[in-house]
Amino acid sequence: MTTDPTHTEKMKALQTEQKKKTSEARDPGRGLILVHTGNGKGKSSSAFGVIIRALGWGQKVGVVQFIKGKWITGERQFFAKFADQVTWHTMGEGFTWDTQDKDRDIAAAEAAFARACEMMQSGDYDLIVLDEINIALRYDYLDVQAVIDGLKARSDRTSVILTGRDARPELMDYADLVSEMTEVKHPFKAGIKAQRGLDF
Amino acid sequence: MTTDPTHTEKMKALQTEQKKKTSEARDPGRGLILVHTGNGKGKSSSAFGVIIRALGWGQKVGVVQFIKGKWITGERQFFAKFADQVTWHTMGEGFTWDTQDKDRDIAAAEAAFARACEMMQSGDYDLIVLDEINIALRYDYLDVQAVIDGLKARSDRTSVILTGRDARPELMDYADLVSEMTEVKHPFKAGIKAQRGLDF
Repeated sequence: MTTDPTHTEKMKALQTEQKKKTSEARDPGRGLILVHTGNGKGKSSSAFGVIIRALGWGQKVGVVQFIKGKWITGERQFFAKFADQVTWHTMGEGFTWDTQDKDRDIAAAEAAFARACEMMQSGDYDLIVLDEINIALRYDYLDVQAVIDGLKARSDRTSVILTGRDARPELMDYADLVSEMTEVKHPFKAGIKAQRGLDF
Repeated sequence: MTTDPTHTEKMKALQTEQKKKTSEARDPGRGLILVHTGNGKGKSSSAFGVIIRALGWGQKVGVVQFIKGKWITGERQFFAKFADQVTWHTMGEGFTWDTQDKDRDIAAAEAAFARACEMMQSGDYDLIVLDEINIALRYDYLDVQAVIDGLKARSDRTSVILTGRDARPELMDYADLVSEMTEVKHPFKAGIKAQRGLDF
């Protein structure tokens, strides 16, 4: 059970390298823009996980949901208990195949984005999640340049996470972080139902 | 502002297809195994987001952290308030480059996995998160077949999420869902510090 000296040496070198990187890193002086995209699971749920981190530090959070409609989800039931720290707006009308009305979908997306802009400029939030906004951009319900302008006009205090598959390249260019969630294997494809607590 | 009839038709067809898929899907009769891997951001945070969903439905959750040590994170501060619903064990000793001691790392991983097995077999949890366990597998601190055997022995009630980069292929074979988070762009690479509320 003696400790491997080669391992210790390697780890010391790695530690030095990590410390150097960390000490050289700077504070951005402004909230960051994060994009979660791809066809895999985890885009919205990781945004909810980041909300938890923010709440753990006593920060204020806003959420605008662009697509999801009024059905009950675990996350909405949960965050409803934190109304003093989390402002939650579900402004979608549901899936495009359920609304079947493009004008209505566009109006809903525009109203949601107007609300998002107010919140981003207010200076009241440390973190704002624009959930599924990439879907609204993909269908041209929103103009990508207008969305980037809205992000640029945010308060310095505010970081923003934008979720949804097929994120626009212009948006990824502007973002500080882009993470792509790729589906390697999915139970729904194997004929398994969406599960309460896991999927919604 | 008339509604586009082609759009409506297309959406009707899509709705029919979605309804068919949903109605044919079956209940798995057992908790699912989910793997979050890849080099990008969102593996642990999306597991925390799924915890929120589970809590929103009144479910019981367990977390075992295999690598992260005792430093303070937003998520730990937050979930500490839900001790009646969330059992949280941080059993790592920190990054391998900080411990610099392989025997100690292995002992920590084995103790964490023994705890995880007890929890998975207990029948007390709807969801268990084995955070960063893939790192322990990657360094051979744990044996992949032993981990799969542990998962197989879980209570039918219990779903398990395993996080960390470089997930073992054998584990991905056994899992019901695999989502790979890929780093497209990262602020740390651009010299920006890890941010409280976003990164920890």
